[in-house]
This record gives sequence, C-alpha cells and structure tokens, in this order.
Amino acid sequence: MEQNNKLLIIPLGGLGEIGKNMTVFQYGEDIVILDAGLAFPEDEMLGIDLVIPDITYLLDNRDKVRAVVLTHGHEDHIGSLSYLLKEINVPVYGTRLALGLAEERLKENRVSGYQLMPVRPGDQITLGAFQIGFIQGSHSIPDACGLYFKTPVGTVVHTGDFKIDQTPVDGKLIDIHKFAELGNQGVLVLMSDSTNAERPGYTGSEREVAMALEEEFKDAKGRVIMATFASNVSRIQQAVHSACKYRRKVVVLGRSMVNVVNIAMELGYLEMPEGMLIEAEEMKRYRDEQILILTTGSQGEPMSGLSRMATNNHRSVSISPGDTVLIAATPIPGNETSVSKTIDNLLRLGAQVVYERISGIHVSGHASREELKLMLNLVRPKFFIPVHGEYRMQKQHSKIAEGLGVPRENIFVGENGDIFEFTKDTGRVAGKVKVGKVFVDGLGVGDVGNIVIRDRQQLSKEGILIVVVTLDKQKGVLLSGPDLVSRGFVYVRDSGELMNEAQNRVKVALERCESGKITDWSSIKLQIREVLGKYLNEKTGRRPMILPIIIEV
Amino acid sequence: MEQNNKLLIIPLGGLGEIGKNMTVFQYGEDIVILDAGLAFPEDEMLGIDLVIPDITYLLDNRDKVRAVVLTHGHEDHIGSLSYLLKEINVPVYGTRLALGLAEERLKENRVSGYQLMPVRPGDQITLGAFQIGFIQGSHSIPDACGLYFKTPVGTVVHTGDFKIDQTPVDGKLIDIHKFAELGNQGVLVLMSDSTNAERPGYTGSEREVAMALEEEFKDAKGRVIMATFASNVSRIQQAVHSACKYRRKVVVLGRSMVNVVNIAMELGYLEMPEGMLIEAEEMKRYRDEQILILTTGSQGEPMSGLSRMATNNHRSVSISPGDTVLIAATPIPGNETSVSKTIDNLLRLGAQVVYERISGIHVSGHASREELKLMLNLVRPKFFIPVHGEYRMQKQHSKIAEGLGVPRENIFVGENGDIFEFTKDTGRVAGKVKVGKVFVDGLGVGDVGNIVIRDRQQLSKEGILIVVVTLDKQKGVLLSGPDLVSRGFVYVRDSGELMNEAQNRVKVALERCESGKITDWSSIKLQIREVLGKYLNEKTGRRPMILPIIIEV
Repeated sequence: MEQNNKLLIIPLGGLGEIGKNMTVFQYGEDIVILDAGLAFPEDEMLGIDLVIPDITYLLDNRDKVRAVVLTHGHEDHIGSLSYLLKEINVPVYGTRLALGLAEERLKENRVSGYQLMPVRPGDQITLGAFQIGFIQGSHSIPDACGLYFKTPVGTVVHTGDFKIDQTPVDGKLIDIHKFAELGNQGVLVLMSDSTNAERPGYTGSEREVAMALEEEFKDAKGRVIMATFASNVSRIQQAVHSACKYRRKVVVLGRSMVNVVNIAMELGYLEMPEGMLIEAEEMKRYRDEQILILTTGSQGEPMSGLSRMATNNHRSVSISPGDTVLIAATPIPGNETSVSKTIDNLLRLGAQVVYERISGIHVSGHASREELKLMLNLVRPKFFIPVHGEYRMQKQHSKIAEGLGVPRENIFVGENGDIFEFTKDTGRVAGKVKVGKVFVDGLGVGDVGNIVIRDRQQLSKEGILIVVVTLDKQKGVLLSGPDLVSRGFVYVRDSGELMNEAQNRVKVALERCESGKITDWSSIKLQIREVLGKYLNEKTGRRPMILPIIIEV
Repeated sequence: MEQNNKLLIIPLGGLGEIGKNMTVFQYGEDIVILDAGLAFPEDEMLGIDLVIPDITYLLDNRDKVRAVVLTHGHEDHIGSLSYLLKEINVPVYGTRLALGLAEERLKENRVSGYQLMPVRPGDQITLGAFQIGFIQGSHSIPDACGLYFKTPVGTVVHTGDFKIDQTPVDGKLIDIHKFAELGNQGVLVLMSDSTNAERPGYTGSEREVAMALEEEFKDAKGRVIMATFASNVSRIQQAVHSACKYRRKVVVLGRSMVNVVNIAMELGYLEMPEGMLIEAEEMKRYRDEQILILTTGSQGEPMSGLSRMATNNHRSVSISPGDTVLIAATPIPGNETSVSKTIDNLLRLGAQVVYERISGIHVSGHASREELKLMLNLVRPKFFIPVHGEYRMQKQHSKIAEGLGVPRENIFVGENGDIFEFTKDTGRVAGKVKVGKVFVDGLGVGDVGNIVIRDRQQLSKEGILIVVVTLDKQKGVLLSGPDLVSRGFVYVRDSGELMNEAQNRVKVALERCESGKITDWSSIKLQIREVLGKYLNEKTGRRPMILPIIIEV
C-alpha cells in the first residue's frame, strides 16, 4: 500500500473559476474536505439557479470522509454544504460566523442531523491523519481563516480568501506570525488565493472605506440608503458606526441582509447600540436625516431591495430627491450592466447616487500582487499551488512565485479534478478524478443536463415552431392539420402569410411522403424539418426549433 | 407659423444609452439627420441581432428630410443607414472613411440608388436652412468630425465622439481653433459626448499605445497576433508600423477586419508598405517571428477570429507556445466574461497573452472630465445638451457644465424623443415624439416584438412542455393522448415518472371537463395549464411554458 504514504490534494472546484470551492485532502484512509461552495450560473446556463461541484469522488470514498472544514462563510465556500451533507453527513468545523451562516442554509434546505463544531482562530483539531489549524486571516467577512494541515509527509498551508489588511475594522489582524512560524518550521505546499494576482500593489484596507463612508454620511441631507453584499459584515459595521455618529436609526431590508445582520449580532460580530435598529414600519416616526437603510442589490440583482427601489417597486421605500444611495460593492464581472441600470434609475428618481466609479467607495477583499509576494515569502513553501482563480489569475500567480524563486517544476497551475500527490520530497500530478458542474434548477439537482441547456439556448434565440400532424392509423392519410404553433419565433397574428405558406409546404411534403409510401415517423419528421427549415430560413433568416408531432388516430 | 422660427433638435437615439445615435435637426421645412447608428442587443433581447431607432417621426415628415450627415464611421453612428435609406433616400454627407464603411454596409444590405457625398474636415455645406460645417476631431477612427449647424436662431455645435488627443497617430490634431472661433462668435447650443463623463483627468493619447505595442513586438519570439476593433484604424496603423520596424509580414483575418483594412488602404487612411501584406496561405513561407496577424475578437465574440483560435477552431491559425497575443481593446460592459474566457483558453494553449488588465495597452476614444471641461470652455454655449451616454453619464456631464457656470436651467439632461426647441434666446423641452427600439432579427426588421421576446425569455429559463390532446369532433371524447413533449424543461428519458404522472393528471382534468360538459377549447386549455402548472411546480420548483394543443378529428 504505497499509496498510503502519500498525501493527495484534489480540488473538486475553485480552480479555473471563481466559485464552488471544494478541496479534498486525503492521506491513507482519511479524507477531510476543505469548503463546500457554490457558483452562480454563467450566462449560457439558462434558467439554472446554482452550480455545485460533482462529488462523485467523495461518494466513491464516503467511508474515508472524516469532516468538512470551512475557511469562512461566503456562499462560494459554504453554499453546497446542504447538498454534500445530505449525501455524506460528517461534522463541519468552522468559526462561529461561518457556521451560523451555513446553518441558515442548512435549515432552508431542510437538512437535519448536521453537526456543527465551532472553532476559534488559533485552534488546532485532529481529524484522522491530519492536525488542522485555523489561522486568523483578513477578508471582507469577519473571522475568515487560513488553514494548515500537518500530515505525515509535511505541512500544507491554505490561505483561504485573504488580504493583508493592516487596519482591519474588527481589530483582528491577520496572524502573520503564525504564517511566519509555519514558514520557519518548513512548509511542503502552499495553496494561495489568486483572485487579484493580476492587480499590482496592495489592496486597500476596509478602514479606508470608513472614511469615504463618513464623508457621505456627513453630507447627506435626507435618508442614506446603503447597498452592499449581505455577507460583508465589516462594511455593514462601518455604516452602523457612521449612522451612530450622525444619529441615524438603522433599518435593515432584504431577506439575506436581515439574516446576516441577525446572525452577526447574535454571535457578537456586529456591534449595534441598543435601540438603534428599528423596523421598516417605524421609519415614518423619524425624519429623513435620521434614517440609514441597509439593503441588498449592490449587484443589480432584479429581485433585490435596491433594484425594487430603483424601479419604484419596493414595499416600504420610495426613492425621492434628497435620498443618498451608496452602492458599496464593485460589480462582479457580468453584472456591470444591471448595476448601471440600477444607478440610472435611481438618478432618474432624483437620488444622489454614490458608486464605485465616482467615489472609490469599494476595496477588494483579496490580496494584490505585493501581498501575494509577502505570503509566499513568509511561508516559503517547497511546492506551490495557486488556487481560487480563473486560469489567467492562477497563471499570473505562478509567475509571481517563480519570480520569488519557487522552481517552475514545483508550481502546479492545475485544474479541478487534478490529483496532486505529495511525499516528503516529491510532488506531481498523478491523474484525475471525475469533476464537473452540477446544475441546481428549482428543486432539481443534476436533472437539468447539457441537452436541456442546449434546447433552452436554441429556444432563447430562435423560438420554436410546433407542427402537429394527425394521420389516419390505417390509411396513413392526413386527417387534420398540419397545425402550426409558434412561440418565440414570430407573432402569428402578424405573420399570416408566412404561416400559411409554411403550412402549404408541409402539406406538399406530407403528400410526397404518402405517394412515396414513406410511413415511418422519423422519416416524415425529418422531411417536415427540412422543408420548413429551408423555407423559414429563406424568408426570415432565422432557424427556429422545429418540432413535428405526429398523432395517429 | 410661429413654429417656423424655431429650431427643433430631436434625438431619436443615443440618449440614455451608448448606441443607435440619431438626431433630427429641424428648422421650418427642413430636416437634416445627424448619424444613423445601431445598437447591439442587451442581454434580455434574446436572439436579436441588432437594434435600430424607430424612425416614425421621419416617415411622418419625409418630405422635409434633406440629408443625412455623418460624424464618423463607427457602427453606432452608421449602422442603421441601410434601413433609413430604404425608407427615405436622401444624400449622405461624411468624410471618405465614414462613407467607405457605410457603403460596405449598404451593399451588404442591397440598398441601391444611394448618394454618398464626400466632404473633408473644414468643409461647409448648405442644406435647406442649415449651414453645416465639419470640424476635424480626434477619436479611435480617423477623420471623426464634430459638426456645427448655423441656423437662423444661432449656432449649434455637436462634438461627435471625441477626445482631445494632443499627439494623434495620423498627425491630424483636433481643430481646437475652430471650436474656439465658434465659441468667440457665440454658440446657442453645445451637444457633447458624455461617454467618459465619470472619468477623472485626461484620456491617454493613441500614441501611448504605440510605445506599449512596440515593447511587445520587441520581446515577441514567435508570431504576434493582435486583436482589436476592426474600425480602430489608428491602432491597426500602429501595429503595422511596429511590424515594419521588426520586419514582420502582415496577415489580416476576419471579414470585418479585411473589409476595413481594404477600405482604409484604398482611401489612404492606412499606410501599408508595398509587399508587406500577405495572404494567410503564404504564412508557411515565413518563420514565426516574421509574422503579424491582425484579427477580430477583442470582445470575445464567439464567431470571431480570436475566439476560434482560442478554442483551436480556426481555419488557418493554430495557437502554439511562442505566440504572443495582444488584445488591444477594453471589454465593453457585458463582454468581460467572454473576453476572460478567450484569454484563459489562449493561455491554456501556451500563448503569451497581453491584455489590458496587465498591460495598459488600451486607451479610450472618448474625452475624460478635464477634456470635457476644455470643450465647454472653448465653445461657451448658452444651452448645453449632454449626449452620447447612459443617463448617469449625461448627469455627470451636466454637473461638469454647471460647475463651469452654465446655468442649471439651460442644461437639458434629456431622453430619446424629447423635442428640444430653441429660439434666439430661449430653450425648452416642447414635447415628445415617438421613439423606440426596433429589433432586427435575421432578415426581419421590427417583426420580433415584445410578445416574442417575452416568450423567448420564458423558454430560455424554463423550457416548454407541449400537451397534445386529440378529441373526437362529434362526441368530444379523448381519441388519443394526451401526448407530452418537453424541450428545455426536463430530459424526458430521465424523467419517466414525472411525465407519466403529469399525463395522468391531464387525463383526469380532461375527464372532469367531459363530465362537466366543458367543451370550449379555451376552458379546456386553461384547465390543462392549471393542473399541470401546479403539479410541475410542486415537483420541480419550475414553471415551464405549458402549451396545450387540441386537435379535433
């Protein structure tokens, strides 16, 4: 069993992408899973709600799985926990905020019997062959951790999502001493956050936002409405501080914002002076300049609080001139257009809108190039795996490591499913396991596959033309129809001529089939598709999905 | 006819959006149309190829239309000319490059009998009540012009798309003297480009790109492949200069790139030394380091040259390690994800990829805030209309003007269809004309409307379930079916149970209809929709389009 003296690290998600982070650590008969995240669907994944990692490898090795350990409470690290625990119920370790946010999701998804094991930064736990330590990090959510895995072949350090914030809002400095200490003791592998590997310099501190925020609070004449990621508790804390200073009450709107604020307050991650938080209904008892509204929608999500306000469609808030709206988050790539529309609509309603492009109100939660260098220099790993990034970010991160002297052959720019195999002295890619994107659509997990998505893509661009043909079972002659029904192709009422001629062409084709003694359905359907496809493309330049349905009576 | 002493300016496109620029200038019995552009479809306009302005107002006033005048040759300024001229054939004035690019499109769209009237920057023409002058501008395409309209009530200056490039690549400085002269003589209205009104400082010169490009050419060991907008002739010229210096031959790939390069060379806008341009087939006669490939795809467009190369799917170029790919254009909002994918794929194939985020290889073609101030100060207008921008850009631009002393009531942050009415002393919004988005889908112009788009949206997210029911004409009883066909909802082969139960529920509903003597089709269809909709939502959490089709034989 030579295999047993080797450490395997297998990313099931999070490489070549931002999202659905999940990594398998395996030594002998023990597996520990680091994070269980989700990804949001890409544009072409039509109708899909969420994407989660394919966990076939874990199901095949379910007896070995000891636990899940969480770096922090963001969706891309905890969002597939419900689906994982339904299959493999093992204890989940993480800081209280991460577990609090995870539990919210577990309840929503009606998972029962879960075991949540709170740890603190600085704690070390033993799980099978692994001694696992949680290192205080800094990120855009409190108590984000880096982790180390002490294994029989050496130590692995995983940074988690991090930046090196010298002035964190909660006062908890990233534990650079621990990273340094591990570096001194000798680290076999470093896995480090590549999100901002393309970005020169240093990432700004959350504290910088505080000053920008305060300026806006100082100048605001009416209500202040701030939208940010619900999970960005530090940003919310700063807004609450400013509200406190300028004597505003705080109203929290939007389900996820309410949830996070409640959890963070309950667990002591968010300070809110007594009596400061009020309900939406109480707002009318205060003047506009006494109000701060915290809401979701910083990404222009159509159903979010801010989008509803922007389209004058919110239950409890109508935007009016005098309102100051702070959008305190950068648009995630792909969301720029919806964010822009939200801003435009808010401006049209007369609000002052402060957004990143004109304010610099946002700083990233991820380390830029100089911080990544510092981390590499602190930890001084023998092997390096850039993680948490799209391919070009991993690639840039690998160049940084090379520039600092990590030998090129010791750097693995890998992809999901790669089996990274380590001994005390060696590291290599030793094969691949099955990985993939599992689509969650409504209640269905994995039931929407590529065929359905391809159909949706064609339907979305060209629509569908349904051709119903009723044949006499005995004689095979046309009893009724062909009936043509269009959805998303043309509006039939405006296209009478086109549809009539299309119907004629189908009739002629059917007569040809009849006289040619062609009776099998697939040949008849093929004929209909060909004749119609050609005609419609000629006339309209489009290729709707043509769906012949043959009924025999 | 008091109306006749007033100047009307009516934007039919280009306000509240980047795209489909078209503005009506009307005085008495004379209309001149400034630009005739298209817009690219937004995400939710599924399957739409192009969007053009609604020209109802022009059709209603066709006898008054004297001409179209063009600022420059970009699609968002010339792309709907074909559709306009098919309806209203009037002469088109513009610089030779703008007309050359426009003509290409007119031929493609089989427009005949058009009259193209070349002018030079500095020329002035008389069209009805208007004296119209073309002012040399600077932008990301040569001979982009600003225009002035001398009218009986005063002068209107329209900047066109511009920046103030002090070192333009073609040596043609923007004619700041003319803008100053007009300012001295007195300007009634300034209409100025708002694209970068959110951007502080000055926009970089195209010349800055030249230096960055040269660095890349100097370092490149193998082929250089540059992707940019086909219309960015200056950028292409710089690449050709660098190629020349480093003794590379030039291969042009991609239909639009080939077209523009040919037109620009023919009209003298692009210098290409004799023998330097070679065909794709000739590439094999040269070593890699002797080749520059110019291609399209800087926006990650799926069918473009660069995207095909990135997916190893190009007819004449396979990417290999050693290739240097320069992506010399910023992603347009909404295209970030596809550009990122292209970069990732090229890196995976081993190419060096130089893109904006890590190189600063792109500069914008539009003036930033300081340049916008300079323009306002040069022209010193009585009234100001920020144009060419989304609402928040117009709004920012209006604040700039206010800051420079233009009275707030003399600034019009308007929208498409507004009738801006001016006399010698007054300006106001005097009503609205019909405007809108006309969708071009394949060969159809305007035949895809909101109903079709809504259907496509539902189809794209949830798919369709077709229920065919065959009834006996006399007795109204079920002869066959119900037959269920799914496209984009579930893959039927994997969902047997769901479909069987769905079929049963429809049967029961039909029996209920029969026993209840419900025979009208719309009631039966409603029943089917309700029963199925409820069942499927319960089981899958989704709401496919349910399309009952009743056949009577």
